[in-house]
Amino acid sequence: MKEIQGGITAPQGFKAAGVHCGIKRNKPDLALIYSEIPATSWGMFTTNKVKAAPVQVSIKKIRSRRAQAILANSGNANACTGEKGIQDAQKMARLAAQELGIKEEMVLVASTGYIGKPLPMLQIGAGIKQAKPLLSSKKSEEAAKAILTTDRVIKEIAVETDIPRRGKGKVKIGGIAKGAGMISPSLATMLCFITTDACITEDALEEAIRLAVNKSFNQISIDGDMSTNDTVYIMANGLARNKRIKTWRKKKKLRVKDENFDYFCQALDFVCISLAKLIVRDGEGATRFMEVKVKGAAFPKDARRIAKAVANSTLLKTAMAATHSNWGRVMAGLGVGRVMAALGAAHAKIDPNKVDIYFDEILAVKGGIGVGIDLVEKRLREVLKEDEIRITIQLNQGSCQTTFWGCDLTEQYVKINKRYV
Amino acid sequence: MKEIQGGITAPQGFKAAGVHCGIKRNKPDLALIYSEIPATSWGMFTTNKVKAAPVQVSIKKIRSRRAQAILANSGNANACTGEKGIQDAQKMARLAAQELGIKEEMVLVASTGYIGKPLPMLQIGAGIKQAKPLLSSKKSEEAAKAILTTDRVIKEIAVETDIPRRGKGKVKIGGIAKGAGMISPSLATMLCFITTDACITEDALEEAIRLAVNKSFNQISIDGDMSTNDTVYIMANGLARNKRIKTWRKKKKLRVKDENFDYFCQALDFVCISLAKLIVRDGEGATRFMEVKVKGAAFPKDARRIAKAVANSTLLKTAMAATHSNWGRVMAGLGVGRVMAALGAAHAKIDPNKVDIYFDEILAVKGGIGVGIDLVEKRLREVLKEDEIRITIQLNQGSCQTTFWGCDLTEQYVKINKRYV
Repeated sequence: MKEIQGGITAPQGFKAAGVHCGIKRNKPDLALIYSEIPATSWGMFTTNKVKAAPVQVSIKKIRSRRAQAILANSGNANACTGEKGIQDAQKMARLAAQELGIKEEMVLVASTGYIGKPLPMLQIGAGIKQAKPLLSSKKSEEAAKAILTTDRVIKEIAVETDIPRRGKGKVKIGGIAKGAGMISPSLATMLCFITTDACITEDALEEAIRLAVNKSFNQISIDGDMSTNDTVYIMANGLARNKRIKTWRKKKKLRVKDENFDYFCQALDFVCISLAKLIVRDGEGATRFMEVKVKGAAFPKDARRIAKAVANSTLLKTAMAATHSNWGRVMAGLGVGRVMAALGAAHAKIDPNKVDIYFDEILAVKGGIGVGIDLVEKRLREVLKEDEIRITIQLNQGSCQTTFWGCDLTEQYVKINKRYV
Repeated sequence: MKEIQGGITAPQGFKAAGVHCGIKRNKPDLALIYSEIPATSWGMFTTNKVKAAPVQVSIKKIRSRRAQAILANSGNANACTGEKGIQDAQKMARLAAQELGIKEEMVLVASTGYIGKPLPMLQIGAGIKQAKPLLSSKKSEEAAKAILTTDRVIKEIAVETDIPRRGKGKVKIGGIAKGAGMISPSLATMLCFITTDACITEDALEEAIRLAVNKSFNQISIDGDMSTNDTVYIMANGLARNKRIKTWRKKKKLRVKDENFDYFCQALDFVCISLAKLIVRDGEGATRFMEVKVKGAAFPKDARRIAKAVANSTLLKTAMAATHSNWGRVMAGLGVGRVMAALGAAHAKIDPNKVDIYFDEILAVKGGIGVGIDLVEKRLREVLKEDEIRITIQLNQGSCQTTFWGCDLTEQYVKINKRYV
């Protein structure tokens, strides 16, 4: 597997475009993604009870497991907009389908932005007409730009991987995403669109994206809030002409017989984890990246609860925002207590007296007892990167582990989120 | 029932003192509370799995349901300090008992402050000797001051209430508390010490304080973090000589036959809710107070989950930090979406299409649909107080309700918590 250029248009047969249609003041706000032929598809959505209209509409659509295009706008979430919102989301799909000359059912939609405002349908209609002729196999970046909200950078990746067994060579996977705020498991104000030219069955595709999302987007947190609009779409058009990747079930339990499935998953995991990390690094106001690894848990859910609680702890996130000159000292002085307090509050079965905690490679807590700020600070100062910390929590109570990614909570985050323009 | 002066020394037979013993640089850091005679007592503690040493020690002590003194220090939490910490907490109690000439078992201890540092026992020993002769029935305020950490103001209250039935008149209840950060249900870096001269059975006292804590300290949130040290103590020395307040059980279910119990609970609830609100108003960096009322839930736990999720939403708390000049607009523009997103994510059984939301008296969401920012903003501007908002969420799905209190999340909160001095 290797990283390649091209984002979502790297896989064969995919085109994309991004335009400014007027939802936002002067930034691109409408993205269109199109596959030359209908693609096997799947979608995963926010688990929030309050689901935006495009989510409600697309959840039904995706049951057919086929799609050929994705239309997404930023600047307006089309959430809490009632029956009118549903009609607007359907109309988005219909207008795009007309323009592309495909069936309405083949267009998936997504929205992100302000909640509670009706969509400006005139602008969106005009935007679709504008985007259609711009569709190109070189415009992944334009589409990536058009779905951003408070994000500072575009999030795009593509990989090429061998499907070695009885295949005809290489398969490509590309993805774009947006994040910024309201990011918390499970799925948050997060849009992620993945394309691949792999030939893969519907079941295998669904299984693969579920696995990948659980390892990536469900393992990140910016502010612990969960959005109404989170969506991951994947489209696989089969143009790589590899031998079809399959999974099948034996006695209700999934058994993967096809080795190519693992190769595909490996590449898809990489795409999703890379995009998830990009989202965290670009969290609203974020200046530091935090990796929380929990090891030695008795059960997987204990590991997950602890990792999530620690990465979400407001107090730990705030300590991480310390100024460059003394952030080693702050982590040594406050980090220990805040990690311990957060993991103790995580509703997980643990014995605090067995817990060891490492900041990077530095042992900061041994058997539940702080090893002393002075010792930790001195050594932290030597190894600590300016913009990253890895926290390893060894519970010493089993063999389950997980990794979670988060960022610091800064004054800038507050500044961004207390504005309404 | 009426509010009176005197805090924890308002009830008969209680004395208090607060001194600076040297844990903190130059602020009072050691509080002593003493009852002339042994008192029926109870304690409630953090549900964090990581419990500070004083909590571990006092949990065992309180089983006797008797105490005569409370010794509490600020500046050092004596948490994550291992076996040495346990010994130190026990020694605190022993030293105070020796000085007061009472049994060691009769002294409850509590600590708050930095985690992971050993207690400076020499200073604490000297502090106890210093505090003893200062014990006075007029020094509630000194004790209240000595337990503060990043709090800006002392939190103190006292009430007097009639125990009308077959009693001999009035009973007094006093309380002091500290809060500031790491406040979240259930119980947070919160210390609360309550004294009363009521004559009350052990069972009735335990029941009354449990009920009161659930209505007050478990219904507030500053930052969603839960501390290792949270403690509520109540001591009832019976010096009011009222007819003993009782509860008793019939067939395992608690039946309160004694009407006086209700009068006592009413006063105790008032004390606890008042202190809880003072804690929220004095949250680290907080500039605005938020009351979240959830009505019409099908089950009590749904109401609680939603109220807690909304009051804890980082994004809503940040919106509440908007500058004075445009905070009506921010709440109208962002509040609707953030409340809806938070309540949808609350793991409660709700139908979003039935939800109405009011900001103060202004209808902002009707049947899950935003009524429009312009309308809301105009009316909000007329009624909105500068430092307070009441959010009422009518679920229209049942008859259960609850109230939760929180505050905004400001740049100042971040500033306070990214420092280590």
